[in-house]
Amino acid sequence: MAKISVSIAGGSGYTGGELLRLLLFHPQVELKQVTSERLTGKSVYKSHPNLRKVTQLKFSALDDLQECDVLFLCLPHGKSMCGLDSLKLKAKKIIDLSGDFRLKSAAGYEKWYGKPHACPENLMDFVYGIPELHREEMRAASFISSAGCNATATILALYPLYKNRLVELDRTVVEVKGGSSEGGNSVSEASHHPERTDVVRSYKPTQHRHIAEVVQELSFGEPIQMHFSATALGIVRGVLATCHVFLKEDLQEKDIWKVYRQEYGQEPFIRIVKEATGAYRYPEPKVLIGSNYCDVGFKKDEESSRLVAIAAIDNLMKGASGQAVQAFNLMHGFAETTGLEFPGLHPI
Amino acid sequence: MAKISVSIAGGSGYTGGELLRLLLFHPQVELKQVTSERLTGKSVYKSHPNLRKVTQLKFSALDDLQECDVLFLCLPHGKSMCGLDSLKLKAKKIIDLSGDFRLKSAAGYEKWYGKPHACPENLMDFVYGIPELHREEMRAASFISSAGCNATATILALYPLYKNRLVELDRTVVEVKGGSSEGGNSVSEASHHPERTDVVRSYKPTQHRHIAEVVQELSFGEPIQMHFSATALGIVRGVLATCHVFLKEDLQEKDIWKVYRQEYGQEPFIRIVKEATGAYRYPEPKVLIGSNYCDVGFKKDEESSRLVAIAAIDNLMKGASGQAVQAFNLMHGFAETTGLEFPGLHPI
Amino acid sequence: MAKISVSIAGGSGYTGGELLRLLLFHPQVELKQVTSERLTGKSVYKSHPNLRKVTQLKFSALDDLQECDVLFLCLPHGKSMCGLDSLKLKAKKIIDLSGDFRLKSAAGYEKWYGKPHACPENLMDFVYGIPELHREEMRAASFISSAGCNATATILALYPLYKNRLVELDRTVVEVKGGSSEGGNSVSEASHHPERTDVVRSYKPTQHRHIAEVVQELSFGEPIQMHFSATALGIVRGVLATCHVFLKEDLQEKDIWKVYRQEYGQEPFIRIVKEATGAYRYPEPKVLIGSNYCDVGFKKDEESSRLVAIAAIDNLMKGASGQAVQAFNLMHGFAETTGLEFPGLHPI
Amino acid sequence: MAKISVSIAGGSGYTGGELLRLLLFHPQVELKQVTSERLTGKSVYKSHPNLRKVTQLKFSALDDLQECDVLFLCLPHGKSMCGLDSLKLKAKKIIDLSGDFRLKSAAGYEKWYGKPHACPENLMDFVYGIPELHREEMRAASFISSAGCNATATILALYPLYKNRLVELDRTVVEVKGGSSEGGNSVSEASHHPERTDVVRSYKPTQHRHIAEVVQELSFGEPIQMHFSATALGIVRGVLATCHVFLKEDLQEKDIWKVYRQEYGQEPFIRIVKEATGAYRYPEPKVLIGSNYCDVGFKKDEESSRLVAIAAIDNLMKGASGQAVQAFNLMHGFAETTGLEFPGLHPI
Repeated sequence: MAKISVSIAGGSGYTGGELLRLLLFHPQVELKQVTSERLTGKSVYKSHPNLRKVTQLKFSALDDLQECDVLFLCLPHGKSMCGLDSLKLKAKKIIDLSGDFRLKSAAGYEKWYGKPHACPENLMDFVYGIPELHREEMRAASFISSAGCNATATILALYPLYKNRLVELDRTVVEVKGGSSEGGNSVSEASHHPERTDVVRSYKPTQHRHIAEVVQELSFGEPIQMHFSATALGIVRGVLATCHVFLKEDLQEKDIWKVYRQEYGQEPFIRIVKEATGAYRYPEPKVLIGSNYCDVGFKKDEESSRLVAIAAIDNLMKGASGQAVQAFNLMHGFAETTGLEFPGLHPI
Repeated sequence: MAKISVSIAGGSGYTGGELLRLLLFHPQVELKQVTSERLTGKSVYKSHPNLRKVTQLKFSALDDLQECDVLFLCLPHGKSMCGLDSLKLKAKKIIDLSGDFRLKSAAGYEKWYGKPHACPENLMDFVYGIPELHREEMRAASFISSAGCNATATILALYPLYKNRLVELDRTVVEVKGGSSEGGNSVSEASHHPERTDVVRSYKPTQHRHIAEVVQELSFGEPIQMHFSATALGIVRGVLATCHVFLKEDLQEKDIWKVYRQEYGQEPFIRIVKEATGAYRYPEPKVLIGSNYCDVGFKKDEESSRLVAIAAIDNLMKGASGQAVQAFNLMHGFAETTGLEFPGLHPI
Repeated sequence: MAKISVSIAGGSGYTGGELLRLLLFHPQVELKQVTSERLTGKSVYKSHPNLRKVTQLKFSALDDLQECDVLFLCLPHGKSMCGLDSLKLKAKKIIDLSGDFRLKSAAGYEKWYGKPHACPENLMDFVYGIPELHREEMRAASFISSAGCNATATILALYPLYKNRLVELDRTVVEVKGGSSEGGNSVSEASHHPERTDVVRSYKPTQHRHIAEVVQELSFGEPIQMHFSATALGIVRGVLATCHVFLKEDLQEKDIWKVYRQEYGQEPFIRIVKEATGAYRYPEPKVLIGSNYCDVGFKKDEESSRLVAIAAIDNLMKGASGQAVQAFNLMHGFAETTGLEFPGLHPI
Repeated sequence: MAKISVSIAGGSGYTGGELLRLLLFHPQVELKQVTSERLTGKSVYKSHPNLRKVTQLKFSALDDLQECDVLFLCLPHGKSMCGLDSLKLKAKKIIDLSGDFRLKSAAGYEKWYGKPHACPENLMDFVYGIPELHREEMRAASFISSAGCNATATILALYPLYKNRLVELDRTVVEVKGGSSEGGNSVSEASHHPERTDVVRSYKPTQHRHIAEVVQELSFGEPIQMHFSATALGIVRGVLATCHVFLKEDLQEKDIWKVYRQEYGQEPFIRIVKEATGAYRYPEPKVLIGSNYCDVGFKKDEESSRLVAIAAIDNLMKGASGQAVQAFNLMHGFAETTGLEFPGLHPI
């Protein structure tokens, strides 16, 4: 079978590099071009030192992009929507890793991104990029918009509970903790090593953009409130979403187990992690680095109706490039785990 | 004026070492003895390498403890209450850093510590060790029980709101993040460096003991619920408490400012941290290492009645030994900041 | 073609876990058993949390080990040599990851390991486990002894220089820096997270055991001296060997390039890293985590005859389990990179 | 006694901030002004978040600098020498923390800094800023040039050996390892947190500028060679210099002890650290953070004439601002430890 020809627009950043790493080893992919305006003509390993000698690819200019089967967009937020028409001329299928097409509502986009959407008529063309929620649509999709990393962890922690209408809709508090690679490879005073090391930084106590995605995906037709905060940690990769929900009924842990198992029991990339002993009793992002797993766990509070639902991911994998490849596999009928078998390392 | 003679029972651990460091430089203190059964006769720098050449002290056995004016207890949980009677023979004033005398209720102790209290009749003799809440009692106290580190951060974040009855009493969610020194210096598989490094470990999603202290101190005569979780991070020192409360009335940030300023405006160790720009807009434990400050900040959610109240401390200072010295100063009429002037380091 | 049946004796530690991870995804391997006395009957993910759901394997007892084609030994130092005879009954081919069979000299073993060797008659049966030096012997070998991690980095940094007799034999100074996983998964006060974090610990300024391997492999019939020190860092994985050698002749960097390229130009796992600009100008262990690469670089001192030769590896991969699988591939005529394609991550 | 009036020119960086922290608590100092062009009019805590509420000082412009008794210069390299004449009008005594006046030789300056010196006639006016070597000159000095951080650690490790002519002069190899705060607070791709975290980066395998200072201070009239490399680590603060010297005579460790004790036995900021057991057997920068100590230790190689001499410092304290205050104390006849009593923290 002929391989799928694939290019990456905007490949000098962290999600672009991770995508490149995955696609170079994907057995069904022929990687054609990777673009970077800043590094045109330079070897890709200049940005991605782990790929030295792994590939001889050099960065192309976006203007020199040739036609291909699938185009991944790792452009800065706002660039995909502005260039969509011309990008569509290059490839029939597009997977966008930016935030441009995650929201279905143009008004929502304007509210959370602070400017009007450039092509609101295209918003409904994109499938929201979490395969566990939109697998069937993905199989037939031409356009997929990858989900935000914090949104992915939160949604996957909560999806079984919201879908089954088990929780009070206005009380959920979500506390997401994430690493410095979430901010990309642009330098700033806040990302300077002496300043960022060992932080427990309340960088978005309220009003994180990813709230909009979470609400969109978990509403199931009813108004819901997400009381969401994001804290930046001194790790490089990894997201942990700790979600405090309040159960409508008096459910026991075994009931909750059943709900999660029913939704996720067959999922290749979701593991339910809940042990009585040991240092890895709940989902831990540390052991997921490089893997596409989302580990999900929970603990019922014996003193109240609170359930703590927890999810861990690698923000650059299940939170970005890994999930995009998972979607790519679905779009093409490949086994969903193709090219995504790496299980993570221990210790690390 | 004669100096106060002071000894430390159980001085080989982290809180003992930190106390030792503080008391050695305290201008009103004559440090007499430090005990350790395991290290009797050894120089204290064997456990506390930062004190090499700073002091010639050697560890004594507990049985060899002589009379002194003030005895600090840094014994393992459960040891202070069992030995209280004999310890009282050594000193008229006792400051206990364990959990043994934090709770006023013997039933509460049994519930949270899993065994009956050894001397419940003494529970009411101890003043709970947060000076900002119990300053006047401390001035006259003979017995003080230092507060838990996570409890201190949580209580100080929330005290102005609860005291002024501004929040719904059953909805507060507290997410505390802390470092590895919280666990003391006993080794375990969970604290082995390759396992503990870079963790975002949900070690107590529910049922953390410190809940009992928080509820005790913030109830003000009404039943309250604390939905509390604790996550262990890869840092060594530092606690950040992120507290999600729901306001009963529609207050603006300027109103909240006023409340915090009223309660804390004169406090020598509390700073209100809330900036519009920069990497240090909210309380950050990283810059508090070695200092006795508790930095407190907040952010009102524009979408709901949620207020995110945030507090940061160094768990070994304001969360343990520093706060104990602050209490000691109050007990003796010294300036509250004596021996506690170190402001923390930047960068670190 | 039938797969090779493989078992691991002593699989609960870090090298055992890493080997397990590699062999589970090796296309030519059927993994049969993994032993652990402490965890017999438990799932392997109890020790190796990254392998949860990746395998259903449980630990066996060593006594229950069945026959297989190849047996990997990850037993503690001293155990392989004592049990060799009975282990040979289980498999015709053995790859030992301990230090027991690295040295050819029984006297050398006794000197560096502090006790007589249990079966000195077998020392010459084992091929020393660096494929770049012993590839042809490995193709025919039944017994391979994996090299030490610090030794591997040092030898691969220096091999082209010593083989070509370019350096003064008594002046080389080697400074190896390594992470905490080098110490294995046994807890100790020195490995307790608060103590080990951020150390720059001179743990072996002299007399590191790996000196013996380095001298054995780089002597080429002449007496040589290795002035070797090892410093422990706060990272988990990674070794950097910085080797200061003094050139016998006045060679320029382009001459050195030629020497390295000649020796390593065809090597699948060695990359020469030497750039004029950027943050990754020389070998950096950080980007090798999880990969089997050894990156090698050098810099000529313009002020003297000194050449600084540098090598970086992941101590658990090229320094242990990865290199063992590379040897396994050679033993069986598989492509040397089989199962070892993972290129490392960036950022991390 | 009237306090000494002191100002800091260039106080927004890391050495400026650390100096500010020290001088604010120095009992003999009245801090007058701190300059920053970029932050003129802003509170100093904007750059130094640990000083919030500790001082109300705001940054002044350099042009607004008033006369004072002592002026500390924390300007970027090259600025002190260009502005020296006008700065001298502001204060009779100057302590420069840049590299401008460290070298006595104008030719040396040009070689190592890549440009001619702006006022070579002033080079001999400055005392080189290591008190342990130049205490008497400092007591009478008007101008002091603080030593480089890596140079300080190296010189203090080696001084007793070179002064007593115990080592071969052409064989010493020095391997310095340091943290990210050495690079100051200017952001760059190399200092971006995801790139810098956990590095073991060979940033100056040869030709580090500090070699010139080391050679200048350790020559004692004879030509010497320093084979020097610098490796950047993922820590924020701390320097460890591992120095491999070759003894001319067959000295035992007890002889070396004697030499070090003779030179350093009375030094308030040098501790000889050499233990048979424990995790802190040799100098460890981790426990020196915030302190002005230089810990020095050594280990004799039993196999050769090599002695490994080791020194650890906090690069911002004994390697910069702490040492500058130590010099300031000497200049004014204050106890050398005034304002520098902080012993460092453990654990950290």
